Amino acid sequence: MLVEIFTTGGTFDKLYFDALSDYRIGEPMVGELLQQARVGFDYRIESLLKKDSLELDDADRALIRQRVAASNASHVLIVHGTDTMTLTAAELADIPDKVMVLTGAMQPARFRDSDALFNLGLAIGALNCCPPGVWIAMSGRIFAADGVRKNRLAGRFEENAS
Amino acid sequence: MLVEIFTTGGTFDKLYFDALSDYRIGEPMVGELLQQARVGFDYRIESLLKKDSLELDDADRALIRQRVAASNASHVLIVHGTDTMTLTAAELADIPDKVMVLTGAMQPARFRDSDALFNLGLAIGALNCCPPGVWIAMSGRIFAADGVRKNRLAGRFEENAS
Amino acid sequence: MLVEIFTTGGTFDKLYFDALSDYRIGEPMVGELLQQARVGFDYRIESLLKKDSLELDDADRALIRQRVAASNASHVLIVHGTDTMTLTAAELADIPDKVMVLTGAMQPARFRDSDALFNLGLAIGALNCCPPGVWIAMSGRIFAADGVRKNRLAGRFEENAS
Amino acid sequence: MLVEIFTTGGTFDKLYFDALSDYRIGEPMVGELLQQARVGFDYRIESLLKKDSLELDDADRALIRQRVAASNASHVLIVHGTDTMTLTAAELADIPDKVMVLTGAMQPARFRDSDALFNLGLAIGALNCCPPGVWIAMSGRIFAADGVRKNRLAGRFEENAS
Repeated sequence: MLVEIFTTGGTFDKLYFDALSDYRIGEPMVGELLQQARVGFDYRIESLLKKDSLELDDADRALIRQRVAASNASHVLIVHGTDTMTLTAAELADIPDKVMVLTGAMQPARFRDSDALFNLGLAIGALNCCPPGVWIAMSGRIFAADGVRKNRLAGRFEENAS
Repeated sequence: MLVEIFTTGGTFDKLYFDALSDYRIGEPMVGELLQQARVGFDYRIESLLKKDSLELDDADRALIRQRVAASNASHVLIVHGTDTMTLTAAELADIPDKVMVLTGAMQPARFRDSDALFNLGLAIGALNCCPPGVWIAMSGRIFAADGVRKNRLAGRFEENAS
Repeated sequence: MLVEIFTTGGTFDKLYFDALSDYRIGEPMVGELLQQARVGFDYRIESLLKKDSLELDDADRALIRQRVAASNASHVLIVHGTDTMTLTAAELADIPDKVMVLTGAMQPARFRDSDALFNLGLAIGALNCCPPGVWIAMSGRIFAADGVRKNRLAGRFEENAS
Repeated sequence: MLVEIFTTGGTFDKLYFDALSDYRIGEPMVGELLQQARVGFDYRIESLLKKDSLELDDADRALIRQRVAASNASHVLIVHGTDTMTLTAAELADIPDKVMVLTGAMQPARFRDSDALFNLGLAIGALNCCPPGVWIAMSGRIFAADGVRKNRLAGRFEENAS
């Protein structure tokens, strides 16, 4: 299995800048976390964007879509902010023959108590097992991309009761 | 999804006893890690055994098998030492109608640099996506239980080229 | 040794609120860190304020001063934001017969890579060894309160070359 | 302040070897921890020994003594196993004109819940503040080298009521 990994920013990669006393998107953490996970598959990592997902615009999503579609890998992981993860997922819906999984984090990976490392494992589990299509790996669950919403108050992804 | 979780010991739960300058199997870490992961599914945790997997005997495996078979949950996670994980998996092979996933860790969950949290996510990913059967979630991969071996030297699970 | 600990907020206690995608001052971390440190002295912890130190005003500093002066403990630790730590230290200068140490953090204690636990140890080292007076424990050094400044760009406390 | 740091092994530097399912002394952690601490003083680190302190013999202690005495630094930190820390400290007692601090850990620095980073801060605090002599920095306290014992059962260093 070769996994193509695109990072786009989001809480997952946030760090803390004391000089300004606020949070910023830092360098992608996914490579470091995959080393910690001692994984036995091949992967490539590319940092496409470094934005809060609320700041992603149409051009950003077009870029993500174009890069995913153009990849020669059949397994693609996208690290993404949680607030608009479902919008980006919808954009990828008609790309054929690829397992595409989006994940993110409610707490930055640099926190001791972060969910990032777990979510990364969850997403890799889905990449191993799921059929082609777009999947969202959050809150310990694998959701079809069009069947999920973020419950911001509860800090959790849930089925989208439509 | 209701996940029944049985812990059996192994590196995953090891702690360090300064009083004797050695390690022991401690209380299961899986509950704490699932809280950190902020998961949105139901689960039960039971500590069945606290052993290095090299010390598990036939009676221990019979106990594990009996408890998995008797569970009313269709999704079962077993936290297990890595050295004989495949033996226990083989024991479960003919239990019908359940997704059963075994995982463990190469470094104790109590270490800063542990693979345990990732492996737990990986296993939960498999529980979400895999069909009924016995699966091993290690090294960033999901293996059919009869198609995998531990490469002790490389510190990694690999396909069992038979 | 009985140590009276007052917390006032600052980076040390910051957490990350995904619901608003920003940070806030959380509950004091010092108690949890002292447990991790397995310390063998007595202490009391009180959360006086929960503010960025840039937001502390004269009334806040008067409160801190009043509470330190009124304490029956001869050893006082103040966890404080770094930006105005020296101002609060100056306010305490004429309180007699107490060892008073201020410390803080450049990275929140909840980060994996935080300096908070080290700085806490450093401050406790100063409380054990220093004579009465006001001391600042930051950047691996113990400074007399009137001989130090924060170099915001370098992210470090330095001697105040006056 | 230039700090000469000698590491000798002990729990502080223990890691976990899955290949043998036991603990070993790994590479010294002190450099990584001082980077995390963002310290503003100069230091040199040398790994003298990699042993449990119960395994240190007279030749080992003679080596430590010789290297401390020969150092051109006036501030020396020794990272040491806790079980015989007081014996090594006694060996250094008559070296003049140096502040010498020994510290260690009850839990390996590689653990999430380790006291190592705190103890390192504590020791650096003592190096900043204490007069020449031999000091032991453990359990949140700074002890004169001849006034302390390890209470193995309690997992704590205490005054040596003689």
